[in-house]
Amino acid sequence: MGTAAAVWRFLVGPPVRVRQAAKQQITPIEGLPALSLDALTSVAYGPEAIIAVLAAAGVAALHLVLPISIAIVVLLAILVFSYRQVIEAYPGGGGTYAVCRANFPPSVGLLGAAALVVDYTLTVAVSIAAGVGSLTSAFPALGPATVPICLGILALVTTLNLRGLGDTARAFLLPTMLFIVGLLGVIAIGLIHPLAQDTPRQGQPLTSTQGLEAVGVLLVLKAFSAGCSALTGVEAIANGVPLFKQPRVVRAKRTELLLGSILGVMLLGLAVLAYRWHIGPRSGETVLSQVIALAIGRNWAYYVMSLTITVVLMLAANTSFGGLPVLTSRLAADNYLPHLFSLRDERQVFAVGIWVLAGLAGVLLVAVRGQTLRLIPLYAIGVFTAFTLSQSGLVKHWWKTRPARWRYRAVVNGAGAATTAVATVIFLVTKFTVGAWVVVLAVPALIALFVRTHAYYARCGRALGLHTIPDRPSAKPTMVVVPVTGVNRLTQHAVAEALSISSRVVAVHVVAEDAGQDTEHDRELDERWARWDPGVPLRILHTEYASVARPIVAFVDELREERDEQIVVLIPVALPHRLRYRFLHNHLEVALTAALKTRPDVIVASVPMPLRIP
Amino acid sequence: MGTAAAVWRFLVGPPVRVRQAAKQQITPIEGLPALSLDALTSVAYGPEAIIAVLAAAGVAALHLVLPISIAIVVLLAILVFSYRQVIEAYPGGGGTYAVCRANFPPSVGLLGAAALVVDYTLTVAVSIAAGVGSLTSAFPALGPATVPICLGILALVTTLNLRGLGDTARAFLLPTMLFIVGLLGVIAIGLIHPLAQDTPRQGQPLTSTQGLEAVGVLLVLKAFSAGCSALTGVEAIANGVPLFKQPRVVRAKRTELLLGSILGVMLLGLAVLAYRWHIGPRSGETVLSQVIALAIGRNWAYYVMSLTITVVLMLAANTSFGGLPVLTSRLAADNYLPHLFSLRDERQVFAVGIWVLAGLAGVLLVAVRGQTLRLIPLYAIGVFTAFTLSQSGLVKHWWKTRPARWRYRAVVNGAGAATTAVATVIFLVTKFTVGAWVVVLAVPALIALFVRTHAYYARCGRALGLHTIPDRPSAKPTMVVVPVTGVNRLTQHAVAEALSISSRVVAVHVVAEDAGQDTEHDRELDERWARWDPGVPLRILHTEYASVARPIVAFVDELREERDEQIVVLIPVALPHRLRYRFLHNHLEVALTAALKTRPDVIVASVPMPLRIP
Repeated sequence: MGTAAAVWRFLVGPPVRVRQAAKQQITPIEGLPALSLDALTSVAYGPEAIIAVLAAAGVAALHLVLPISIAIVVLLAILVFSYRQVIEAYPGGGGTYAVCRANFPPSVGLLGAAALVVDYTLTVAVSIAAGVGSLTSAFPALGPATVPICLGILALVTTLNLRGLGDTARAFLLPTMLFIVGLLGVIAIGLIHPLAQDTPRQGQPLTSTQGLEAVGVLLVLKAFSAGCSALTGVEAIANGVPLFKQPRVVRAKRTELLLGSILGVMLLGLAVLAYRWHIGPRSGETVLSQVIALAIGRNWAYYVMSLTITVVLMLAANTSFGGLPVLTSRLAADNYLPHLFSLRDERQVFAVGIWVLAGLAGVLLVAVRGQTLRLIPLYAIGVFTAFTLSQSGLVKHWWKTRPARWRYRAVVNGAGAATTAVATVIFLVTKFTVGAWVVVLAVPALIALFVRTHAYYARCGRALGLHTIPDRPSAKPTMVVVPVTGVNRLTQHAVAEALSISSRVVAVHVVAEDAGQDTEHDRELDERWARWDPGVPLRILHTEYASVARPIVAFVDELREERDEQIVVLIPVALPHRLRYRFLHNHLEVALTAALKTRPDVIVASVPMPLRIP
Repeated sequence: MGTAAAVWRFLVGPPVRVRQAAKQQITPIEGLPALSLDALTSVAYGPEAIIAVLAAAGVAALHLVLPISIAIVVLLAILVFSYRQVIEAYPGGGGTYAVCRANFPPSVGLLGAAALVVDYTLTVAVSIAAGVGSLTSAFPALGPATVPICLGILALVTTLNLRGLGDTARAFLLPTMLFIVGLLGVIAIGLIHPLAQDTPRQGQPLTSTQGLEAVGVLLVLKAFSAGCSALTGVEAIANGVPLFKQPRVVRAKRTELLLGSILGVMLLGLAVLAYRWHIGPRSGETVLSQVIALAIGRNWAYYVMSLTITVVLMLAANTSFGGLPVLTSRLAADNYLPHLFSLRDERQVFAVGIWVLAGLAGVLLVAVRGQTLRLIPLYAIGVFTAFTLSQSGLVKHWWKTRPARWRYRAVVNGAGAATTAVATVIFLVTKFTVGAWVVVLAVPALIALFVRTHAYYARCGRALGLHTIPDRPSAKPTMVVVPVTGVNRLTQHAVAEALSISSRVVAVHVVAEDAGQDTEHDRELDERWARWDPGVPLRILHTEYASVARPIVAFVDELREERDEQIVVLIPVALPHRLRYRFLHNHLEVALTAALKTRPDVIVASVPMPLRIP
């Protein structure tokens, strides 16, 4: 094992056995860190996104943050009730892809899958960017290093996931609780503290209706759709129902409600504070950081809170790493992605999915230079498409199964689907030019990839006769060809193995025609071969070209034409025990293997001989 | 053949046969472009290097350019006479490495070889940098692109040499003649033209002795050693004697004299003009460009001359590409470098040597940002070390062979050796801190590489028993293991080839233990296998790990321990006709091949089955 391999092994750990199928049995409280981090941490960028849009229209528009936040919380309520129904309908874990596959034709399922791939990738990028934003707000000196810090955190999260996180997810409880309690505390202090009710930045309160005319519907819609990024992640609990302790459905529904309540309170509270303090976007400092600083001052508690937010956002990115590789492995199992995605590596994780997710998120982070707000326009479309699909699927599900109160259920999910469908269209229209086009291109591209991969594997399966019984295999006589460089132990080793395979062996030696000294060389080799007498003939091949592989390939082709035989080429290879000596040998192996690879009836094998050189 | 391969084939051309050994039969005039370009083009940077050193000490020192140039021309005369003797003594082509090998212990030969490697590399870098310097002097707008232009020219020269230049060297005659005639013409015009005798830059002639005291010996030595870069390349004719028409020695000696005369006249002429016109270093314009512009004006002739200089310097770089790969191939043939260096590629050129030379020159050009003057301190040491070694070798040669007038010959060569040895020491001392330390590190590093490689091949030869007759090879019974994924045509193909090799075949199938559904899967596969009835048993291997390779390796190891058999592992490989489909298959092949590579008694082979998918 080389040094690089040893370092890698140290980073990701030794191979692990298949883990016992014992599920993590979690309670609603534990469900928050395990399944709700993505949603809860949205408060770090949702209100910020609203304010950024409003501020672009002038200071007068900033007061709209309150009504828009209220609208978003209403949508949140609809989604929460809707997803509580999803939990009931698909207690086996109703991921969008699963709901779609059960209720719609495959193409809709693929749309859902593509939207989810985009969503997971953006969740990683947005969470890391927002986490680093929180860090650089607290420590402005780190600002210029934003992109390297983002990539460093991405590398850390990727490595942890390549290790396989296992049960360590429970360790997330502490920072999550610190985050929830801390932020609710900040909001409470902000609301009741008399000093905090001052308007520290701008002396003048906004005259409430002035300039409202100029604001316009489009601005409100834009701000609303930007703020909807705060709702991403509320579907995660419905995906993870099997993780809960029995009674699962009850506990999962309770967690969903808990998540909805906390998130709603946070969003409203932050909106009230932002409204009251006329908080606008500020270069180098996030809105959340401004609110915290105004509420509790820039003391040790502020720094603890900032670091907690960074950590919790890292953990939110981490949960996507739990989701996407599982999704892509299912797609691969259904032949929609290369089977590589369904291979577990030695740590039992779907390493290819992890690498692809890390690569995509890395590209995004570099492309937007780690700026959260530049990712927001791309973000919500995938999520809301998935929302719409899974809820429409449920409407169909209720229609088909007709359980008790199915009409009521269908109405709830239908309302959710309609609202999110409208929101999706709003995103598309208002954000197309500022980044949404990327998603509009990416989703069909992903679907095309899925469809083409599926079609390929189907054709391939027919070509391989996967569902038929092939003819019985029939043996042919075998001829072994051994290219040799002279009479030495390497040749001896290879010829011995060749004789084990077949009694019909021929050694070949290539001489590049040069300055007429061939005869001399030929005679000498012939003589040594005769003295050795290995029981195998030697054929000397002359060539006018420089390539040694070419005449051997020609010789093999001759043999193939002459008679119907199985031809085996055994290439002697010296294998020095130190890697750095390898390139001092065996220049023929690579060329010959490549040259013969396209001849399907020829077996090419290297015969390694270890060389312990003192 | 992929697109990249096709483009490459277009660039370097199709494979060529070994060329007829017919030598290029050249005359003294043709010898100038073929062997003397490096030396002749030195005038483009030699005088410049002197002036740069002098100017650093103040304008008053500039007049020293004349005496220093005279000293250099005297040294040139010694070298020319000395090398005429080398030609006589080694009419077979007396390269430094050859002379050293004949007269000194191997270590001295390696010192010569190392010095030559450094010399060839620097010749390429210096010539290209000076050529681009001439270009940017004529077209100052190109100045900022100096490094890209350098690398572009390097890529061009490299590609041409990978094609193999063959007889095209004769095409060099025209630009070479244009260069010689043009530059001699420029000097003649400069010397006789009354207008040109004005001092156009500075009205006041230098008062000749003023400030001389301050100049000091060290400055003179520095300027002298910098100017010696103009002497590089005078040894090339002695290396190429076999290229000349009979009587070779006479013609080669005549060429050497011709080269010496032209170079001497050019150096002296340029020195006189630079002295008369008080030419100093000028940012963005070479000294040679200044001289030409002052002599003939900035008209079409000036631009023709500038471009000619660029072209001729490119051709000078090209001649190094003729030298280094041949030298490294000889070193490889003597086991001093990896044998890769002695392999001809399909164009019959020593491609590895060409690539290494191009890489080293590229690094140098980037490191000095294409500035010729920054390469000069590194340049002359290698050349002058080689001068000293080959001439000392000749002294020993005369001493041993004692032909007519051997004392006289020994004195000439001894004087040359002594002068160049002194010059080498001067370079080392005066230029150590400004770049010569690179050479002082590189030469021993190269020698260490040579010595270690040689020692490795010696040990390796003993380990392989290269000079003994090995025991007769003995055959063993063979067992073939075929990893299969199921009953399909791929499996059929591989099992048929396995049965051709041996009647004892076992198919293995790996099942990763997962959720207890193994039994179902096992039973199904067993049943299909029984229905197929290929005459080969199927072994199902269960594993708790994710790796499929691991249980197969364990199975093979078991077989190896049980009985003394030759084990062959045949891996079925689907080979789609389109490259982009390849990664959709065959994930086992790479892992298994790597895992089994270290088991010397196991033959591992892929059995490719072409897959034509509509």
